[in-house]
Amino acid sequence: MNNSALHRAPRLYLVTPLAAEKSVVLGPEHAHYLKHVMRLAPGDHVRLFNGQDGEWQGCLQTLDKKQAQVALVACLKSQPAPRRAVHLLFAPIKKARMDWLIEKAVELGVTDLHPVLTHHTEIRQINPERLTAQIREAAEQCERLDLPQLHGMRDLKACLGQWPHGIPLLLALERADAPALRNYLPESGPLAFLVGPEGGFSAEEREYPADLPFLRPISLGSDIFRSETAALFMLGAARLYM
Amino acid sequence: MNNSALHRAPRLYLVTPLAAEKSVVLGPEHAHYLKHVMRLAPGDHVRLFNGQDGEWQGCLQTLDKKQAQVALVACLKSQPAPRRAVHLLFAPIKKARMDWLIEKAVELGVTDLHPVLTHHTEIRQINPERLTAQIREAAEQCERLDLPQLHGMRDLKACLGQWPHGIPLLLALERADAPALRNYLPESGPLAFLVGPEGGFSAEEREYPADLPFLRPISLGSDIFRSETAALFMLGAARLYM
Repeated sequence: MNNSALHRAPRLYLVTPLAAEKSVVLGPEHAHYLKHVMRLAPGDHVRLFNGQDGEWQGCLQTLDKKQAQVALVACLKSQPAPRRAVHLLFAPIKKARMDWLIEKAVELGVTDLHPVLTHHTEIRQINPERLTAQIREAAEQCERLDLPQLHGMRDLKACLGQWPHGIPLLLALERADAPALRNYLPESGPLAFLVGPEGGFSAEEREYPADLPFLRPISLGSDIFRSETAALFMLGAARLYM
Repeated sequence: MNNSALHRAPRLYLVTPLAAEKSVVLGPEHAHYLKHVMRLAPGDHVRLFNGQDGEWQGCLQTLDKKQAQVALVACLKSQPAPRRAVHLLFAPIKKARMDWLIEKAVELGVTDLHPVLTHHTEIRQINPERLTAQIREAAEQCERLDLPQLHGMRDLKACLGQWPHGIPLLLALERADAPALRNYLPESGPLAFLVGPEGGFSAEEREYPADLPFLRPISLGSDIFRSETAALFMLGAARLYM
């Protein structure tokens, strides 16, 4: 099988350990996808990763609608050292925009996703199962070998109260006299970004940095970004230095 | 009218000149939006810009479903100097992703959008009227005072043949041994980015930089970005230095 064909083989995340001369079982969701969406058959190849053991080439042994058996053929990529920790704290936004936010954040290398409730957050609920599935699919698609962690939703104030002080948390403010992102972007070490909802932060929330030394207000410039654009712009900026 | 209320007033792009003690007429599309979507009435305020004369506060004099008459009250922002020219050459992609690409490119400050047909481009047609409307709406939303220009679709080869040699054109390559974007990003002057379709560039296209000194291959790192993510990552990187 040549490299180009292998690059097009479906790439799936699973939690099972991966090692030489082993075979693994894929559950109904993956089996359905391989059989009915990708129209694969026994003998066809897939790529597998679990966030621990690198990426493996696998050969389908059996495939029905309930499960697939895959023999591991070769290790295609070894697991890299953990990437720079980049946290994103975001207020939930409308479904279509949140879907984009999650997909792009995963592509851009986020390691930790923290939904937070702010005073002006209009969307007060999320579906963690749906977001987890989106995270997994985005990681499968973009060839990441690790999966970002989705943290439970918390009030912003509670989240900040528990925040590890060693991780600078950059807070994107609109129409504020704050340093530009490029002047305040640590080039190494863990890093976190906080973006508000469409309605922005409340007056009280905008005062938080005065009391919390890890919380640094920054400006993204004179144009007004939507929430998801602000998040992706900041993640992209961090990514430049990864 | 206080500043906060004015920030929430609808913001519309029009082509009419804007000046003190003038009144302007808005057409059916804007009138419908103001009356039926925003539920405004005479006496309410709007913000207007035309890419030339800054942003103006206007007061609705009349409003029916066919037109609105607006008296210009005050200049809220003077027109800034033209921003750094940032061109994006992109292969058309599927509708939902292209919509998102356009919206985010406008927010991130693109000045020129060039749809190009590459060998592996599957979407061979665009609707320029629809894209123009999206560009205008995104500019209205993000408080830009200028509108990016949408150029006509051309074959990539024709576009490169006519390319002004003074504008470096950075070509995002996947799985290639090319310099990282951050090492090749001019901090001032005009700049252009070229992203391929989902299927990537053809072998022939990947050889273009050998003959075209303005065309510089760059790498976006080891993960694989979707087309629109690559475009937005590069525009965001340029934006960091605007």
